[in-house]
Amino acid sequence: MSVLQTTDIAGGSYSLAFFAMLAASVLLLIATSWVSGRWKLSVTLSALTTIIAAVNYYEARGVWLATSQVPLIYHYVGWALTIPLEVIALYFFVRAIGPVSVALFWRLLVVAVVTILARFMGEAGFMHPTLGFLIGIAGWLYLLGEFYFGRLGESVAKSGNEPAQRGYFWLRLIVTIGWAIYPLGNFIASFAGGTDSGSLAIAYNLADLINRGAFGLVIVAVAINHTHPSGAKKGA
Amino acid sequence: MSVLQTTDIAGGSYSLAFFAMLAASVLLLIATSWVSGRWKLSVTLSALTTIIAAVNYYEARGVWLATSQVPLIYHYVGWALTIPLEVIALYFFVRAIGPVSVALFWRLLVVAVVTILARFMGEAGFMHPTLGFLIGIAGWLYLLGEFYFGRLGESVAKSGNEPAQRGYFWLRLIVTIGWAIYPLGNFIASFAGGTDSGSLAIAYNLADLINRGAFGLVIVAVAINHTHPSGAKKGA
Amino acid sequence: MSVLQTTDIAGGSYSLAFFAMLAASVLLLIATSWVSGRWKLSVTLSALTTIIAAVNYYEARGVWLATSQVPLIYHYVGWALTIPLEVIALYFFVRAIGPVSVALFWRLLVVAVVTILARFMGEAGFMHPTLGFLIGIAGWLYLLGEFYFGRLGESVAKSGNEPAQRGYFWLRLIVTIGWAIYPLGNFIASFAGGTDSGSLAIAYNLADLINRGAFGLVIVAVAINHTHPSGAKKGA
Amino acid sequence: MSVLQTTDIAGGSYSLAFFAMLAASVLLLIATSWVSGRWKLSVTLSALTTIIAAVNYYEARGVWLATSQVPLIYHYVGWALTIPLEVIALYFFVRAIGPVSVALFWRLLVVAVVTILARFMGEAGFMHPTLGFLIGIAGWLYLLGEFYFGRLGESVAKSGNEPAQRGYFWLRLIVTIGWAIYPLGNFIASFAGGTDSGSLAIAYNLADLINRGAFGLVIVAVAINHTHPSGAKKGA
Amino acid sequence: MSVLQTTDIAGGSYSLAFFAMLAASVLLLIATSWVSGRWKLSVTLSALTTIIAAVNYYEARGVWLATSQVPLIYHYVGWALTIPLEVIALYFFVRAIGPVSVALFWRLLVVAVVTILARFMGEAGFMHPTLGFLIGIAGWLYLLGEFYFGRLGESVAKSGNEPAQRGYFWLRLIVTIGWAIYPLGNFIASFAGGTDSGSLAIAYNLADLINRGAFGLVIVAVAINHTHPSGAKKGA
Repeated sequence: MSVLQTTDIAGGSYSLAFFAMLAASVLLLIATSWVSGRWKLSVTLSALTTIIAAVNYYEARGVWLATSQVPLIYHYVGWALTIPLEVIALYFFVRAIGPVSVALFWRLLVVAVVTILARFMGEAGFMHPTLGFLIGIAGWLYLLGEFYFGRLGESVAKSGNEPAQRGYFWLRLIVTIGWAIYPLGNFIASFAGGTDSGSLAIAYNLADLINRGAFGLVIVAVAINHTHPSGAKKGA
Repeated sequence: MSVLQTTDIAGGSYSLAFFAMLAASVLLLIATSWVSGRWKLSVTLSALTTIIAAVNYYEARGVWLATSQVPLIYHYVGWALTIPLEVIALYFFVRAIGPVSVALFWRLLVVAVVTILARFMGEAGFMHPTLGFLIGIAGWLYLLGEFYFGRLGESVAKSGNEPAQRGYFWLRLIVTIGWAIYPLGNFIASFAGGTDSGSLAIAYNLADLINRGAFGLVIVAVAINHTHPSGAKKGA
Repeated sequence: MSVLQTTDIAGGSYSLAFFAMLAASVLLLIATSWVSGRWKLSVTLSALTTIIAAVNYYEARGVWLATSQVPLIYHYVGWALTIPLEVIALYFFVRAIGPVSVALFWRLLVVAVVTILARFMGEAGFMHPTLGFLIGIAGWLYLLGEFYFGRLGESVAKSGNEPAQRGYFWLRLIVTIGWAIYPLGNFIASFAGGTDSGSLAIAYNLADLINRGAFGLVIVAVAINHTHPSGAKKGA
Repeated sequence: MSVLQTTDIAGGSYSLAFFAMLAASVLLLIATSWVSGRWKLSVTLSALTTIIAAVNYYEARGVWLATSQVPLIYHYVGWALTIPLEVIALYFFVRAIGPVSVALFWRLLVVAVVTILARFMGEAGFMHPTLGFLIGIAGWLYLLGEFYFGRLGESVAKSGNEPAQRGYFWLRLIVTIGWAIYPLGNFIASFAGGTDSGSLAIAYNLADLINRGAFGLVIVAVAINHTHPSGAKKGA
Repeated sequence: MSVLQTTDIAGGSYSLAFFAMLAASVLLLIATSWVSGRWKLSVTLSALTTIIAAVNYYEARGVWLATSQVPLIYHYVGWALTIPLEVIALYFFVRAIGPVSVALFWRLLVVAVVTILARFMGEAGFMHPTLGFLIGIAGWLYLLGEFYFGRLGESVAKSGNEPAQRGYFWLRLIVTIGWAIYPLGNFIASFAGGTDSGSLAIAYNLADLINRGAFGLVIVAVAINHTHPSGAKKGA
């Protein structure tokens, strides 16, 4: 039997991430019944990312405990679904308060998928690492561009919905700062040889607490505030 | 312990399909509470196909990691339930917007079951492969005929329900293009010797993302749009 | 690791039965929220039979894959709960549309339990096989008598509820034809030596698809039709 | 792999108890949504006892199949939670129809916990077996005294609620007759050497079907009858 | 197979804690549908702590049965999430009945996280044990100060909501007495060499029954009383 030892910080970070994602999943799933119809989809999409992350961390932890390393593909299978799901959640978050085109939906989805795919192919050796890294960076910058200067931000600004504007600010910040771990880790894994894979795993796991957990909590907080305007929990 | 390696694309495709089906199942199950009564059955039937697929992929992935191949029967046990369930989901999708006979229900169900059964018996050697392939092709063409030229399409056209018509267009397209992988794979497995079973598995797994996941999402999108006509998530 | 091989039809039938019962359980559980109060109990009781069958088949499949046979007791533990539960579901099905006495409830329950118990004791050698077989036959005939000539049929006939009458017709047919597999298998196992246990398992597993799955679907179809009279899915 | 053999009646009784508790748990959990607010708590507490029992039996069955005996502590860990929970369920059952003091709640809870603890310590050798047995008997008699001659019975009698009175009669009978197995088994295990642990296990397992399952069904039957007075399932 | 032996009290305490947390989780999750909107969040947060504790105890029990000891990190991974979650639950408990600032939320959260982190680092040797112990004590005293003399107690006192005031009294008592086990255990583990790890585990496990289970039950009791003022279960 594989036992987690007290000094195995990387293993502990997998365990912590698993429990945190489990708790976030239950909270977000229950919260879908607290928010009004227009918010249900983005809250549910956030819940999907934490559910996927919870199962993914559970499996990755088992691999770590058995072999003291986790192949890249475990992280990338998770990201290939959770990152596009979060981009879509952000799209539907904005659509709950203002108009956005369906074409934007498809652009965001395709770019998010291509970004993850390129990083994976670069790191796994199916593509030249530099090319994979550059496509990944380009995709991320495109997404940030849409979030800061595109229709999404514009629609939020026009909505006049103050809690949603504050929520959008935080979600965008998570996507800017929190997601920076992915190209950074991609760079390290592709070019900076000899990294301690444990440290990178800890960084990924803690970053994902923000990128999955805090992301979903911001969405649900805005949704509850908007559903019950006079104080989040004062309505019956 | 069987560990998925980063370069094991076939194994990764099982893992990706498992997580995608898991997430789709949660989304579709929750969505059954968002749509009005007439749509609940077809959304729930879609959820059943993704639940079956999720468990099926979970088991198939375990077999792949342990033995680097997955016996045909794993795929066919899944298809034997999911393909007829989707045909039935399509039937109830149409019945939500217009009249269709109960006799058609039974015809579709029987043909779908016979189609899968014949393919399986051909590939597994319980029937002459050519015969199995031909019955499978005939069944598929019959189903396409019903969807394009039969009462289903007619009923949709008469309904005047524009979102449902668009949804039906996409569902039929998935059944035409996406399901073509099954007779194709059947042909390859039965006649074209020496195929790399990994490639076929990847093709099956990615196709099933469309055939199970996108199928269900189209149904739920139409159902939500029809339940809350003035913008999917603006109601309530 | 025990892997299901493509030519292992008996193993495949356990797998198919497991997936079918899993899907039926989800459908029936969700459907309890679609039907009006008077139908909830019989739909839920049907769901309990498919849940028990799903777990039972999951375990039996594991035993089959590991040892290529499944001891009788696996089937009988399942039947000892599912058969009485279905008899009770039929009782509450009728009670939803007309009066039936509580005494009948207890008679049906006791006879159903005794029937299964006698068959098991005969086959397992705790009782003379002939005696067990005869008690099993007597119990089954008594139940059929109640369903055809007793108060249940009478109450259904008097109700004037056409969909329920049609449903009762099908449920009774399942109990007559579908359940005939149990005394038949009991006879073969007790007296006809040298049977291929794989064939009997296949027969049991396919029969249970009807006896558990179709049984529950008939009940839920009647309940939905009665709850939303103007077309099953048009309400709400 | 540990396989249950057809002649292993004790193993079969663990399996039967597991499946029965599983089905009872699903039924009771669903039924919490059928009954009015005042009954929800006692129905839910009954569900908790069957859930604990289901998991407990699942684990005990595994131990039995692997070692052909189940250490006492498996049963006592279950009882340490289920017996007090049922005493509390009975308290809230009565409180749904008439006034009972909070002090009684604490007395019942403490006595129930002490009763189980004393039996366990006597049987496990942490206390003189005779002392443990006597404390256990005293606790049980105190509980029976409260149920027959204390405020609970009085409150039920004054309520004039006929279905609840009948339900209380049955619940008290289960506590009198069904629970007698526990001091009896305690006596046998503590003093009558050389018992066949299989027989005791069968007796415990079948008794728990009544003590957990029938107990919960009586509560839910009263709650449904009281919620929908004109026939349990006739209300919408 | 690892089997729990009757005299293994530490193992039994893991098992008991697991079952208790499982039952508490089900009860609290169901209870979220019984209470009015303002109470849903604190009840749900309590449910998250019992869910995390249930899974955590399940895993810790497995480790104990296999190796007769449980590395510290299992407890600390659980506490790192459950202790901050309970502090937050207490914050939202108060916010349901009176105004409290958002800044206080962040102070409580940060202090709770730092407290657990310092204890862990001290015990695991990543920090000087004395320093870890002192930071842990300081954090705990700060939290107690907020609960006794800060805005939370003030807001509760001003609310005039008698059941909430009584509930707050009990919650604060649990945090004062029940949580004292953590710095105490921290002291023993860091300084008092040669402790029997079994005794400490039993103390932790039984304390957590109060600190997780009773904590949640107090919150849900207040929430039910406030939602249905005229007697907890009398409302429909």
